[in-house]
Amino acid sequence: MRLPRIEWRANSVDEFSIIEAYFTGVGVDHDAVTKGPGDDCAILSIPDGCELCVSTDTLLERVHFLENAPGEVVAARSLTANVSDLAAMGATPVGFLLALTIPHAEDRWLGPFAKELSRGAVEHGISLVGGNMSHGPLSVTITVFGTVPKSGAMMRSGAGVGDAIYVTGSLGQAAAGLDALKQGQSGRLPLKEAYLSPQPQWRFGSRVRELATACIDISDGFIVDLSHLLTASEIGAELTLDDVPLSEALLEFAGEKALQYAMYGGDDYELCFSIPEAHCKALTEIAEQTGTQISRIATVVSENGLWSVIGDQRSPIDVRGYKHF
Amino acid sequence: MRLPRIEWRANSVDEFSIIEAYFTGVGVDHDAVTKGPGDDCAILSIPDGCELCVSTDTLLERVHFLENAPGEVVAARSLTANVSDLAAMGATPVGFLLALTIPHAEDRWLGPFAKELSRGAVEHGISLVGGNMSHGPLSVTITVFGTVPKSGAMMRSGAGVGDAIYVTGSLGQAAAGLDALKQGQSGRLPLKEAYLSPQPQWRFGSRVRELATACIDISDGFIVDLSHLLTASEIGAELTLDDVPLSEALLEFAGEKALQYAMYGGDDYELCFSIPEAHCKALTEIAEQTGTQISRIATVVSENGLWSVIGDQRSPIDVRGYKHF
Repeated sequence: MRLPRIEWRANSVDEFSIIEAYFTGVGVDHDAVTKGPGDDCAILSIPDGCELCVSTDTLLERVHFLENAPGEVVAARSLTANVSDLAAMGATPVGFLLALTIPHAEDRWLGPFAKELSRGAVEHGISLVGGNMSHGPLSVTITVFGTVPKSGAMMRSGAGVGDAIYVTGSLGQAAAGLDALKQGQSGRLPLKEAYLSPQPQWRFGSRVRELATACIDISDGFIVDLSHLLTASEIGAELTLDDVPLSEALLEFAGEKALQYAMYGGDDYELCFSIPEAHCKALTEIAEQTGTQISRIATVVSENGLWSVIGDQRSPIDVRGYKHF
Repeated sequence: MRLPRIEWRANSVDEFSIIEAYFTGVGVDHDAVTKGPGDDCAILSIPDGCELCVSTDTLLERVHFLENAPGEVVAARSLTANVSDLAAMGATPVGFLLALTIPHAEDRWLGPFAKELSRGAVEHGISLVGGNMSHGPLSVTITVFGTVPKSGAMMRSGAGVGDAIYVTGSLGQAAAGLDALKQGQSGRLPLKEAYLSPQPQWRFGSRVRELATACIDISDGFIVDLSHLLTASEIGAELTLDDVPLSEALLEFAGEKALQYAMYGGDDYELCFSIPEAHCKALTEIAEQTGTQISRIATVVSENGLWSVIGDQRSPIDVRGYKHF
């Protein structure tokens, strides 16, 4: 594979130098990228019979990562936050644009940032097709591109009554990891890792696409995002709280609050999807083949709303989100 | 035409409210947009025989617009900066993503911002397909999408020896307008307008695409960007300084410094392109049909470099850019 030479759109000799030094050859060459960095636009050539999924996300210091977060953490979290949106559609990643605003051009930050960005891009088989660099308060906006067969994308809408609802992974670990970091706790490595270096589920997403009726990324919090899926699908769900996947590490850290972390914590770059009963066996095979943990946690009902079920008890669930303003 | 309902990717009830109030139905429905806002990704369907041009640009307070700039100015400058990159490729705009970071959710800023964004989007026939909203220092990152016939995009490379080099519009007005604003000068409306409300040349770009051998947007400064075109095309050029288009308004404002503004000022969202002599007549017709001012200002030579020609005198031109760091 040819590694593309990154020239980028640059408007100063210094911006050029930074791009030359840090953002040359990020990721792999991809057939769908006709023209990579170095011109006013990149050019993508979408294979016949495919559509292009696009999404953009900004990550900010003190909002999406801690103050003075090292470059590799910012890169890992930024790339995953975006690729996870492709995963939710069942898209296969193709490439990405990076709009990076940094307060200082420091090697000790830019070096690890670029290295992790490159590692992640190679892992996902994508290429940095262009971008923009500015001088200002730290801000990372990535725009991702991925392909799906025409009319094949999973959406938030489409879940049907009687469908089983699953989630991938263990929930609440990232939010607990963030709290452990804020509290300066030692250890808690699985939790911290979940926050600092999350993995997007696009390989699983691109396989489950043909079976699932609806899907969403749950990074804003499991309950909040599940409620978006239910609203878009115009249905409701009964959630079996006992089936929400909680890791040993989370239970050890959070005790009785573990379920709260799992339901409302956010930062889990996992997928929540609905699937007809008939496909549950095929689903198990895909999960095994891709090494993905899955848990059946709810069932779709016709009545709009979200209820928890513990044994015989059924009670409405409070839908809360993170307030930005 | 159906106006798309903007739901956007939202992670709080408040973000939802802002999006509902300000970013619903921005722009026009476009055939290439299979799925607009409201899911984890938007979906674009590229017509057979076409490729997709993509570009991203961040605009920041005190860098790309003045402190406390009104919303309509930020919207106009952000949209044009991005659409101009499509123009340089000869692409026809399709849609855009908006990653908006704002310090306060104030109607007096968001209202005019959204209104101007919508006006510009309708003017360019594009649709807001999704985005992201965050709370932090003001920053606007737009990612634009446009289509070109396969292998039909103009690039910075491709200019041939003997080609004529043209620019659209009058140069230096925006930079002079910015200085007039900073100095608190009254009047100077054409200059201020050039800075505050620039127009991208995509209609002209999409027509000249079949004739031009290379093209670049000159928003980083005419000489800097021309030198990028020359470098990418591995050729040089002789520039006739007398032919650089200077407006009456600029000459009145800047006197002897008018040419400096035109050559190094930046913020001109105009196109600089090379074209074989044989196509110059057809070019004139396109300029007339699209109401575009064009000026022939240079000729491509085989020797790498850039020279000014005044009468019989030929001297090398200093290539300078704006330093970000």
